[in-house]
Amino acid sequence: MKAIVYHGPGKRSWEEKPKPAITASSDAIVRIQKTTICGTDLHILKGDVPTVTDGRILGHEGIGVVDEVGNGVMNFQAGDKVLISCITSCGKCEYCRKGMYSHCHNGGWILGNTIDGTQAEYVRIPFADTSLYPVPPGADDEALLMLSDILPTGFECGVINGQVSPGDTVAVVGAGPVGLAVLLTSQLYSPSEIIMIDVDDNRLEVAKRLGATKTINSSDGKATRRVMELTLNRGVNVAIEAVGIPVTFDLCQEIVAPGGHIANVGVHGKSVNLKLEKLWDHNITLTTRLVDTVTTPMLLKLVQAGRLKAKDLITHRFRIEEIMKAYDTFGNAAKEKALKVVLDSGGTR
Amino acid sequence: MKAIVYHGPGKRSWEEKPKPAITASSDAIVRIQKTTICGTDLHILKGDVPTVTDGRILGHEGIGVVDEVGNGVMNFQAGDKVLISCITSCGKCEYCRKGMYSHCHNGGWILGNTIDGTQAEYVRIPFADTSLYPVPPGADDEALLMLSDILPTGFECGVINGQVSPGDTVAVVGAGPVGLAVLLTSQLYSPSEIIMIDVDDNRLEVAKRLGATKTINSSDGKATRRVMELTLNRGVNVAIEAVGIPVTFDLCQEIVAPGGHIANVGVHGKSVNLKLEKLWDHNITLTTRLVDTVTTPMLLKLVQAGRLKAKDLITHRFRIEEIMKAYDTFGNAAKEKALKVVLDSGGTR
Amino acid sequence: MKAIVYHGPGKRSWEEKPKPAITASSDAIVRIQKTTICGTDLHILKGDVPTVTDGRILGHEGIGVVDEVGNGVMNFQAGDKVLISCITSCGKCEYCRKGMYSHCHNGGWILGNTIDGTQAEYVRIPFADTSLYPVPPGADDEALLMLSDILPTGFECGVINGQVSPGDTVAVVGAGPVGLAVLLTSQLYSPSEIIMIDVDDNRLEVAKRLGATKTINSSDGKATRRVMELTLNRGVNVAIEAVGIPVTFDLCQEIVAPGGHIANVGVHGKSVNLKLEKLWDHNITLTTRLVDTVTTPMLLKLVQAGRLKAKDLITHRFRIEEIMKAYDTFGNAAKEKALKVVLDSGGTR
Amino acid sequence: MKAIVYHGPGKRSWEEKPKPAITASSDAIVRIQKTTICGTDLHILKGDVPTVTDGRILGHEGIGVVDEVGNGVMNFQAGDKVLISCITSCGKCEYCRKGMYSHCHNGGWILGNTIDGTQAEYVRIPFADTSLYPVPPGADDEALLMLSDILPTGFECGVINGQVSPGDTVAVVGAGPVGLAVLLTSQLYSPSEIIMIDVDDNRLEVAKRLGATKTINSSDGKATRRVMELTLNRGVNVAIEAVGIPVTFDLCQEIVAPGGHIANVGVHGKSVNLKLEKLWDHNITLTTRLVDTVTTPMLLKLVQAGRLKAKDLITHRFRIEEIMKAYDTFGNAAKEKALKVVLDSGGTR
Repeated sequence: MKAIVYHGPGKRSWEEKPKPAITASSDAIVRIQKTTICGTDLHILKGDVPTVTDGRILGHEGIGVVDEVGNGVMNFQAGDKVLISCITSCGKCEYCRKGMYSHCHNGGWILGNTIDGTQAEYVRIPFADTSLYPVPPGADDEALLMLSDILPTGFECGVINGQVSPGDTVAVVGAGPVGLAVLLTSQLYSPSEIIMIDVDDNRLEVAKRLGATKTINSSDGKATRRVMELTLNRGVNVAIEAVGIPVTFDLCQEIVAPGGHIANVGVHGKSVNLKLEKLWDHNITLTTRLVDTVTTPMLLKLVQAGRLKAKDLITHRFRIEEIMKAYDTFGNAAKEKALKVVLDSGGTR
Repeated sequence: MKAIVYHGPGKRSWEEKPKPAITASSDAIVRIQKTTICGTDLHILKGDVPTVTDGRILGHEGIGVVDEVGNGVMNFQAGDKVLISCITSCGKCEYCRKGMYSHCHNGGWILGNTIDGTQAEYVRIPFADTSLYPVPPGADDEALLMLSDILPTGFECGVINGQVSPGDTVAVVGAGPVGLAVLLTSQLYSPSEIIMIDVDDNRLEVAKRLGATKTINSSDGKATRRVMELTLNRGVNVAIEAVGIPVTFDLCQEIVAPGGHIANVGVHGKSVNLKLEKLWDHNITLTTRLVDTVTTPMLLKLVQAGRLKAKDLITHRFRIEEIMKAYDTFGNAAKEKALKVVLDSGGTR
Repeated sequence: MKAIVYHGPGKRSWEEKPKPAITASSDAIVRIQKTTICGTDLHILKGDVPTVTDGRILGHEGIGVVDEVGNGVMNFQAGDKVLISCITSCGKCEYCRKGMYSHCHNGGWILGNTIDGTQAEYVRIPFADTSLYPVPPGADDEALLMLSDILPTGFECGVINGQVSPGDTVAVVGAGPVGLAVLLTSQLYSPSEIIMIDVDDNRLEVAKRLGATKTINSSDGKATRRVMELTLNRGVNVAIEAVGIPVTFDLCQEIVAPGGHIANVGVHGKSVNLKLEKLWDHNITLTTRLVDTVTTPMLLKLVQAGRLKAKDLITHRFRIEEIMKAYDTFGNAAKEKALKVVLDSGGTR
Repeated sequence: MKAIVYHGPGKRSWEEKPKPAITASSDAIVRIQKTTICGTDLHILKGDVPTVTDGRILGHEGIGVVDEVGNGVMNFQAGDKVLISCITSCGKCEYCRKGMYSHCHNGGWILGNTIDGTQAEYVRIPFADTSLYPVPPGADDEALLMLSDILPTGFECGVINGQVSPGDTVAVVGAGPVGLAVLLTSQLYSPSEIIMIDVDDNRLEVAKRLGATKTINSSDGKATRRVMELTLNRGVNVAIEAVGIPVTFDLCQEIVAPGGHIANVGVHGKSVNLKLEKLWDHNITLTTRLVDTVTTPMLLKLVQAGRLKAKDLITHRFRIEEIMKAYDTFGNAAKEKALKVVLDSGGTR
């Protein structure tokens, strides 16, 4: 079969690889119908993720059809249409029993990381019963593809951890795909204001279309002042960091109101300076999280009910054979005005 | 009347001051029976708290008898025995209505700070109905005195914010009076392990008597390693910072397990370095808080029921006239083996 | 001044009464601009509420302008536009400090019950600081009038107590004004299905316009079967009782899924038969509540932000002098297709 | 092997049965070391549980050693010492993923009910990875045996569902083994009062030893009055029903304070009369639950830490061969002063 393979920093190729086979009784083999590229895949290609080694097939998102299952699989059989979760969960360890699948002793984020991933014609999914979700008949494949990673990430790490509540004033720092997923899913809890902050005017335009009540271009360094003006100097109830660098974290700690929440979604490569000399008595809650995908079944219901416009995050579509070009587009997101790109292998059944 | 008065950094005196009078209909004047000295009072005397100005009577803790009330006071009358809360709450502003009395628009921590305090023969308490608590007949004055500040501080900022739960492994960094208040009140939620960490062996001895299951003297710089050994390399569910300096905060972020909580109790004068490059995907919750004293009535019930050994925090007792000496003792806490010092004006009614 | 006065079962008149005066320092006198009639007022007129005695001015909802305040009132002054809460809260008792204003030792539901109410030209509001809410400039009076009682009642007793969550299947039994308030406010938490059940097709039509995804006319006695069909035999996550009679309560206990919630909103005059022989092992939560109006400030924000269509509950408008006619209309709600009726005294300032 | 077998109402015998064998890859066979008899077993013998058919081996509690595992079992191997949960959980269905194991689509309470149980020399445990718990070295077998059912039942259905909190006044109606398990585990949350109510003075004596602060013998029909006196007419914060008949449920609804919780633990055979005409505005929460055993690992930690005196529930010990006599003793609990009876097969490894 064909797959995108990592060959060290900066090197990827669309090449022939053996079709995966069942290796444990809880495995399933899934034929990929649609996949997509994540910001994390770009980090891997820069060499930033040392657990990914030469020869690894990339990708941790996808929609497909079950090709074969191990004899311990109860919930799925060949021919079933499935959504692949970016997080693999054994369902049996201490963390899985607590709903913290991201820290599963036998899984977690392993697809396209420590085992071969979804940017391929076929993929092996360990612990299939607890790592795949059935796709309901008539579902929109593209919408569901957004449930593999980006929507639960925005929702769990940003919205739930940030405790977004009806009537809140929320600021989301970063209007890339994940920040926009936060924007979409925060509306499930009816905040009264959602302020989106980014340096890219195009992304802020998209944010307005997707429900932002205010937008701030922070490239002039005055975002803090702008937020304080908009909030009559009170600050925001929830500040959500969706970039992953010190300057955006700083903005969050500047604008959060006493009693408020800072929810970190961004992947950070460096420490940040936490201003405890100011915040120690501000009754602040700060959270970090890797998505657990515990909310995937619920989000799927909302997509099916038409209450979550998941497809609005998609800007580009390619055939799977064009994946090298898709990477180029996604890698130049600002210039290409790219958010999520869909890779289609053809066929919906 | 006599009172301890602040006269700039390093200067305090026990001197004559006018007896306070009712200035608003919600005021009460309380005759002080017992008061105590807080670590914050030492900070003020060092000149670290700029809101405290020359001439201010210090102190924000106390037990006494109501001398006189304004005509809007409903819950108290002259002769009532009362517990004074370190936090003054108007009961009417947005923050008070949310239970965040520490951020009351008209109160908060003002006693011995922006208005005259309790280390005196009499004190004026604004918003008496919502800032005083009735003392039940037969209560132990010394035990209740610990409810003015230190027990709710340890409980709300440390135990509740840290979400201490049955079976948890908890580490408390700092075994001073506040850390020990955390230790006492954390037992209300039945953790299976409470590890106390400090550099003073005497305080660690006290901690053992008060319920610590393990103690670590961190002066050799190996506390992280010791905690990881004790927890079979898993870390602790809850790490509570009760000192207020970067090195103790660092210890907390080193030892917290994935999914765990860091609850800050300490008063910080400097920023800390938050290791988001490690913690971003660890599902951590970090909290800060100034005590709201919302749990004071509940803690009072537990003291009355004999389930909270509040008096165990008291090491020294003085007559109120000896307050200058009491400050010397409390200011040399390590040498004097001092925890809380009680100042008694004589008389219990 | 003129007011609607209760003179025993079945007897009401629009008659002259003395203008109320300040009797305590925490009082405010409010000139009523708009008021409305509640189902509870009809119960009073039937003689069902023994605490209401001959000579009482009815009404517990209203919008107006402060005419005069007692000298202990801090948050309001003459000329301020205010929203009157149906629940009077002293802010100082044990229940108020817990946010359970409905059980305030000195207030609770007293307006138009044990003290004179709002269906008059003026009303005296005790504990004004904690029982009135400031109306923001430019607000729509009619929309805000729905915040005196019906919207917080639906939201607190139905939606919050029922723990409505994103993706849930919710059934609301009863599509009268309160049931429709539940319908409107349940959407703040993005359930995927809201099934409205009533015996009146007109009300079910309104429900559809206000966001119901399914409606069931239960007059054929087959509502249980219909709900089970719609939910593939699983039942609903949340069943909200908004009528107050045994048969509608029964329906709720028939349709709730294991792990689900029954939230009672209706005012009941009789006991119900709770089927513990079936429900004991179903992991059900059943709640009751009198509205506390703790969410009024938040709901006001959402009305102002345009996210809660409060006015959609209003069907009829009268001049205050026509209140006898308004009662006739509201008392024949089915025939008149009446939901909430607004009574206007003229003037918006 | 030998086992206790049900042969229709009133008929049980200790007889020869075939040793169970692995039938699915997720099964384990466990050699029973210790088991016990539950009140539910008595109900089965009366013929009250129609799912139990002639020929069924009874029992759903036990401690033992793994004899053999299916090839899909990851967490256990032959020779491992294990605690058997009364609830079998597949770990893969919707309910298991939500922590509601009691409603597992493939398990739930099946042991000694729809499949053969633990009152035998060997038992087959389906879904072993998620239905067994490892026993730590040096653990006390008898203490752990109380974790199969009774302690998690008391804790989850009574204490957690009742939201027992520090300082609360709690009443437990019923001082049988389950009520006493509630008493023991409620102390994990430090209520200030625990009132135990029963008709058997012996059980109330035991309750006092196990931590009850007050006891009431309700056989004179005056328990409500007694509770109201003890609580100064306020009622209790939490009323826990641990019997399962209408009269004890009634007592709970009479004594619960506004804002309080009624947690049902008892197994009910009949409906009860819920006094909504009184409770509709009392802000009450009423819960039902079949134990999910989600807290078993946590309770096990507390038993190991010496903070939960599980063994105090045991009154009688028998050899497994004496099980017919053990049933007689347990079936005459009042006369025999029996709480939990331990059946021992000999050998601890």
